Amino acid sequence: MKDKILLTHGSGGKLSHELITRSIVSTLGNPILNKLDDSAVFELNGRLAFTTDSYTVSPIFFPGGDIGKLAVCGTVNDLAMTGAKPRYLSLSFIIEEGFLSSDLQKIIGSIQKAAAEAEVQIVTGDTKVVDKGSADKLFINTSGVGTIPDGVNISGANARPGDKIIVSGETGNHGIAIFCQREGINLHVPIDSDCAPLNQLVSEMLAVSTNIHCLRDPTRGGLATTLNEFAQQSQAGIRIYEETVPINKTVLAACELLGFDPLYMANEGKLVAVVAADDAEKILAEIRQNQYGTDAAIIGEVIAEHPQRVVMKTRLGSSRIVDMPVGELLPRIC
Amino acid sequence: MKDKILLTHGSGGKLSHELITRSIVSTLGNPILNKLDDSAVFELNGRLAFTTDSYTVSPIFFPGGDIGKLAVCGTVNDLAMTGAKPRYLSLSFIIEEGFLSSDLQKIIGSIQKAAAEAEVQIVTGDTKVVDKGSADKLFINTSGVGTIPDGVNISGANARPGDKIIVSGETGNHGIAIFCQREGINLHVPIDSDCAPLNQLVSEMLAVSTNIHCLRDPTRGGLATTLNEFAQQSQAGIRIYEETVPINKTVLAACELLGFDPLYMANEGKLVAVVAADDAEKILAEIRQNQYGTDAAIIGEVIAEHPQRVVMKTRLGSSRIVDMPVGELLPRIC
Repeated sequence: MKDKILLTHGSGGKLSHELITRSIVSTLGNPILNKLDDSAVFELNGRLAFTTDSYTVSPIFFPGGDIGKLAVCGTVNDLAMTGAKPRYLSLSFIIEEGFLSSDLQKIIGSIQKAAAEAEVQIVTGDTKVVDKGSADKLFINTSGVGTIPDGVNISGANARPGDKIIVSGETGNHGIAIFCQREGINLHVPIDSDCAPLNQLVSEMLAVSTNIHCLRDPTRGGLATTLNEFAQQSQAGIRIYEETVPINKTVLAACELLGFDPLYMANEGKLVAVVAADDAEKILAEIRQNQYGTDAAIIGEVIAEHPQRVVMKTRLGSSRIVDMPVGELLPRIC
Repeated sequence: MKDKILLTHGSGGKLSHELITRSIVSTLGNPILNKLDDSAVFELNGRLAFTTDSYTVSPIFFPGGDIGKLAVCGTVNDLAMTGAKPRYLSLSFIIEEGFLSSDLQKIIGSIQKAAAEAEVQIVTGDTKVVDKGSADKLFINTSGVGTIPDGVNISGANARPGDKIIVSGETGNHGIAIFCQREGINLHVPIDSDCAPLNQLVSEMLAVSTNIHCLRDPTRGGLATTLNEFAQQSQAGIRIYEETVPINKTVLAACELLGFDPLYMANEGKLVAVVAADDAEKILAEIRQNQYGTDAAIIGEVIAEHPQRVVMKTRLGSSRIVDMPVGELLPRIC
């Protein structure tokens, strides 16, 4: 493999085939992918989840992960948030001419590792190379298909007054990790992205309760955006308590210094669950057993008042509206 | 909607939601997409086809289509080439900051039109905005899911000696259309891209014969690349006859002038079929009934000699090896 990716690697010709077979299929191969037909073919039955995301994160390598790990975890999580068991992923690269082949190899290695942990297979793909200056290094799209178990019915529209709201851990770590890496800020205690596949956690939650109403991973726009989406989709009000929201001390300090609100910072390995009040403690206990849920907490509840609005009781006892963000906090966070 | 796309349109916040609901969902909406959950949910059973493609074509508007129409047709065709009935598509935009909102609206209109013709639904999506200079205008990823009818078994590995090779029409039109548009070349007779959804054509072919062994749309790398892929995947030889390959006169003249070989020029609305010899005439007649197959022709056969090689009998009676392309003919053709 040459040192740099050339336009020819995207031509569909000999070098394309070499790149695909030597670099991609050799690391990610499985009987479905190896056929190299125009589409992957497999058998599935029942209710399916289908999702897509393009990843444009900058920088592409960051503490706690890289664009490859992010592309697998992000799409796995979007599937898991419907209660689905993620099964098959597609993988599409847009590469800028001149990108280092060794960096591509590292990223393919991360994809393999994340896919193995999440127990998903990469079954179909595409590689495009664009001329220098027409893209910034590397963009990845992953789409995914999963199977939804019988009896599971999870949607952002299912929150009901009385339900409890659980967050699976500290909020804002991914956003701060990316920002500090991009801007060359060295925190006293370095913060890693929380980038992780949450499908195992979701299946453990579903095993202890059938009363999980909404699930979402608070990525772009953070916890505040996810809660607002639930409030709008469900036509319900949401109240949270500032003192219960888990935030890493260094993240909090960095946010204060930089003028960010941690409620709006992106996460890539957290989920927000809206669950029946009776099952909330049981589900919380189960989440805390999982390696990605040790800091989980109940942070509030769904209420009948002020539908479509999210309100936070502050540490001082006052109330503050937590609105959808209007402006751009951090571009290219995912 | 503002005149230009801003970074904020990709933030996940208010402007993102506005862009998604006002521009995208209003045009492409359906009960599955309208839920706006992290994943689309639908029921499907049996053998499924799953494929992905990122589209980076430049220019994004060209005679006969635009990047939106291409993104739908390309993915629909990849599904159809397994014999699948395309059902659901995902749609993911990477937009350069400053891109005209009116151009995005035009492209979403083309997507709607192409999806309606192909009878597929856009059920899930994603929108990312990157800073000016980090992408060239607009890239689109579409992934797709389709259902494969019982008894259909189509793969590039299924070509057998004795099979006939059919191409559904003139080769190279898309490549020449893009090249001339990009370089500002005015041909005496303008050439349009052949960009079209071929799923209806494939289902008509499957209705008249169960002996269709391979199907592929000869996009990047053209007819020559597709035939080489069949030869390699099937470990068989392929012989074609130059005089039988349908090529538009203007495309041929342009290729001679520009130094291109039409066998290597991209198509976006053509298919190559490898079929049992006994059914070849019947299938050919059926293809010619379809609006996208009027110029279809039998161009050669699969042979036991020179496995993995494609050879062309020229008009002069000599033989010429038709190899995989090594270099890049035309970057960003799709």
